[in-house]
Amino acid sequence: MCLKMVELYDTTLRDGTQREGISYSTEDKLRITKKLDKLGIDYIEGGWPGSNPKDIEYFQQVQKLSLTNATVAAFGSTRRPGIEAKEDSNLEEIITSGVEIATIVGKSWDFHVIEALETELEENLAMIEETISYLKSNGLQVFYDAEHFFDAYKSNTEYAIETIQAADRAGADRIILCDTNGGTLPLELREIIEKVKDKVDTSLGIHAHNDSEVAVANSLLAVKSGVVQVQGTINGYGERCGNANLSSIIPNLKLKQGIDSVTEEQLKRLTGVSRFVSEVANLTPPTHKPYVGDSAFAHKGGIHVSALMKDPETYEHLAPETVGNRRKVLVSELSGKSNLMYKAEEYGIEIDKENGDLKQALEKIKELEHQGYQFEGAKASFEILMKKATNSYEKLFELEGCRIITEKASGLTPLSEATIKVKVNGQIVHTAAEGEGPVNALDNALRKALLEFYPALEEIYLIDYKVRVLDGNDGTSAKVRVLIESGNGHESWGTVGASTNIIEASWQALVDSIEYGIKLSQDKE
Amino acid sequence: MCLKMVELYDTTLRDGTQREGISYSTEDKLRITKKLDKLGIDYIEGGWPGSNPKDIEYFQQVQKLSLTNATVAAFGSTRRPGIEAKEDSNLEEIITSGVEIATIVGKSWDFHVIEALETELEENLAMIEETISYLKSNGLQVFYDAEHFFDAYKSNTEYAIETIQAADRAGADRIILCDTNGGTLPLELREIIEKVKDKVDTSLGIHAHNDSEVAVANSLLAVKSGVVQVQGTINGYGERCGNANLSSIIPNLKLKQGIDSVTEEQLKRLTGVSRFVSEVANLTPPTHKPYVGDSAFAHKGGIHVSALMKDPETYEHLAPETVGNRRKVLVSELSGKSNLMYKAEEYGIEIDKENGDLKQALEKIKELEHQGYQFEGAKASFEILMKKATNSYEKLFELEGCRIITEKASGLTPLSEATIKVKVNGQIVHTAAEGEGPVNALDNALRKALLEFYPALEEIYLIDYKVRVLDGNDGTSAKVRVLIESGNGHESWGTVGASTNIIEASWQALVDSIEYGIKLSQDKE
Repeated sequence: MCLKMVELYDTTLRDGTQREGISYSTEDKLRITKKLDKLGIDYIEGGWPGSNPKDIEYFQQVQKLSLTNATVAAFGSTRRPGIEAKEDSNLEEIITSGVEIATIVGKSWDFHVIEALETELEENLAMIEETISYLKSNGLQVFYDAEHFFDAYKSNTEYAIETIQAADRAGADRIILCDTNGGTLPLELREIIEKVKDKVDTSLGIHAHNDSEVAVANSLLAVKSGVVQVQGTINGYGERCGNANLSSIIPNLKLKQGIDSVTEEQLKRLTGVSRFVSEVANLTPPTHKPYVGDSAFAHKGGIHVSALMKDPETYEHLAPETVGNRRKVLVSELSGKSNLMYKAEEYGIEIDKENGDLKQALEKIKELEHQGYQFEGAKASFEILMKKATNSYEKLFELEGCRIITEKASGLTPLSEATIKVKVNGQIVHTAAEGEGPVNALDNALRKALLEFYPALEEIYLIDYKVRVLDGNDGTSAKVRVLIESGNGHESWGTVGASTNIIEASWQALVDSIEYGIKLSQDKE
Repeated sequence: MCLKMVELYDTTLRDGTQREGISYSTEDKLRITKKLDKLGIDYIEGGWPGSNPKDIEYFQQVQKLSLTNATVAAFGSTRRPGIEAKEDSNLEEIITSGVEIATIVGKSWDFHVIEALETELEENLAMIEETISYLKSNGLQVFYDAEHFFDAYKSNTEYAIETIQAADRAGADRIILCDTNGGTLPLELREIIEKVKDKVDTSLGIHAHNDSEVAVANSLLAVKSGVVQVQGTINGYGERCGNANLSSIIPNLKLKQGIDSVTEEQLKRLTGVSRFVSEVANLTPPTHKPYVGDSAFAHKGGIHVSALMKDPETYEHLAPETVGNRRKVLVSELSGKSNLMYKAEEYGIEIDKENGDLKQALEKIKELEHQGYQFEGAKASFEILMKKATNSYEKLFELEGCRIITEKASGLTPLSEATIKVKVNGQIVHTAAEGEGPVNALDNALRKALLEFYPALEEIYLIDYKVRVLDGNDGTSAKVRVLIESGNGHESWGTVGASTNIIEASWQALVDSIEYGIKLSQDKE
């Protein structure tokens, strides 16, 4: 069990996915898990094995990761009414998932027990107690999520308390008070916590939603009242208006309340983790979010900028570097070698500080970022770029030319075909392939051309392909950014391309992706 | 002077414009002013006449509006060090602007007086007192913004209090405590307000920033401690992480704290005003913002939707209509004729309940949604689909065939060209066009082919083009969804397409978009 004053419980991978438009693959979830672990999160709720067969795969795979900080938890609900806990397949899936911790949600609100569950109040208490006892007897730690606790307390105080006392009796390791509908304001929330905290022996947690825009404040006030666990998500992603935002709660706790849930080094990863999760979710990073937003430390000028130049503390509540972010006055005023060195180091690229090419690399990156490239989710492209800038990169092939034709006849799905001419090891290869759409055809043709020279290509596959339009107002001539995630079964890497032409943007990301993969396998030989 | 328990002071037009990317014309500001007035805002800070000549025009124009609720205020700072108030052109501009209220910002923080203003602590006190006295003697009401008050209090308590006492002596009508850097947490903020509120006779206000994601909570706690004025902006727009969000504060005060700063009818305008301000600012409306976001009452399914169907209160903290918003449930999970009827009605499509084709339409929609179509942002495609299903749709042209060629030579950006053959009014048109990328080429060719038959096309333009990959794990052969937003200067409409081939998906959305636009203009003739 965690020994910090306040434990961080992240549910980005479960409750966070309730946000419209978010859908992670198993691979996505594993990548996020690793990042959360390095950030210093104590508990990672990976999914709900009983509701979603895809989540079962995650729990199998996650056991192979060597996490250093975090323990993975599986989510589920109390047993169904009228059956025994051991008969509930939802609970069976948690037990077989191999996790150490089960987080079980149960009903606190009388209205919900009757209207939504359609059962008796007594039966609900039995469901809570028996479910927790059953999981405990199977060797699991159990965190109990008291759903709608604050609404429940206001509706039927006595019954709400009985529900958490049932969890307490059953030996729950934590009881988490949930403001599920997000309608509770800070002072009321605190008052309720103060009144119930002595009614159970189990340590309490808080799970807030942001429907009144006070989820962060609610979480902080709950900590002040003695709860030991804070649940939330990166960027506050979640259903409706989102869950409590850990990206704000973590620095608020550490920097303003002196509660060291993460180390200083871990805190510096905060901005990176926030952007990584956005990229994987294929959502625009939240630019104006506190601490982690690209504009969180942006200053638009006038008196503020002039004062800032005298002393940054005049208009900043803390130094942006503390959370891995940066000040933004004018981009050109910020760039420096140290920034580039920091990035290179982060990506494990060795660079000689005295190398004159470094300045050139910096110029190139600034230019590309201005054009819409974004290297947060594209480590491989960044590494290739740095190597090119320091003249330590060797291309594996040269494109001579390519042509992609898409033909559509009335009422039919179009057919795409690509021809490609490349020079590999001094030889010209000219070939063609079909595909689902123009980019897929090009991808297929390139692979076909290179395969006999680089058999390692056989193992390299695309995991994900993402397109984002950067300047929507230009309609179909807008600039797009393509992010590609590739893998070879052992490793995965991201690459990026940007252009007004989606074929060009995809081509850039594809070439980086394939070259990086081939070099990886060559390094191993 | 306002007689409400809590006055609302909006600074969307001044502090809100400090957000990156926001720049309003005078006309924009006047339109927003009218909306704020109807929402029930008490004071509208229109700008800073002393710093911005454009704002002077606003203050001239705004006098011609007949506002029913709101009083307009002009912003400025205390006189410059070492001169008399009457010599300060900044103050002169306020007096000549014709407003009844001047909001004057002054320094509370000793560090700022010395570092940023570069003057003496005594002189700063004189600047505050003399500025307010001078404006009062010119017949203005004066609201005094105590900049950085909370940081100031922590740095030099005695001096911070002296600054507001100077404002008090000069007869300020309100003293607003500002958390300018947004770094103060709720309980600390409340503690400071409790300690200073008896040090002055003037009523207090609160002006919070959101750098710790607690600006809304801070504003609510300040009200609990007796402040009578809350300053903020619509959607929380503002520098860095934004100002306190009035779009959340207003309903929190009214619906949860019983403070009627606006009437029930005014509150119903809230969502509309939020979206209007986003549109005028040319920013995407904040979809996940509490109360006003398009997803604020969205439910993604599973147990929530089933409970909601029994009683909305199970998973909603209030009825969305209260704030002029609406519930959003994913169509596919709520399948049923009633749902389809509801949507059709919403879109103004007349449908005969007994019409046998309705079932067919429903089946078609479910099938398409399963394939990845999404009609939430594609009203026009939905309408076309419904008409097709009820056999009341007439196509404007037939595609005979098209071909898009993208050619890329080594190192160059590719060139895209589309040829298209369509049948319009019995005539075959065969033409070609180039474009930025394959979709833009196709768009250009189609417009070229149709323009002579439908001159209205001249006015129809694409506003936004969005691509989302639906099943990322299939790499470049993944299915994509294309959403297109089009407009004609008066109206805008959304269309959708989905396919594994981006050309096909774009084609579907393009055709719907163009046909819908042409029919709109025909209906008007």
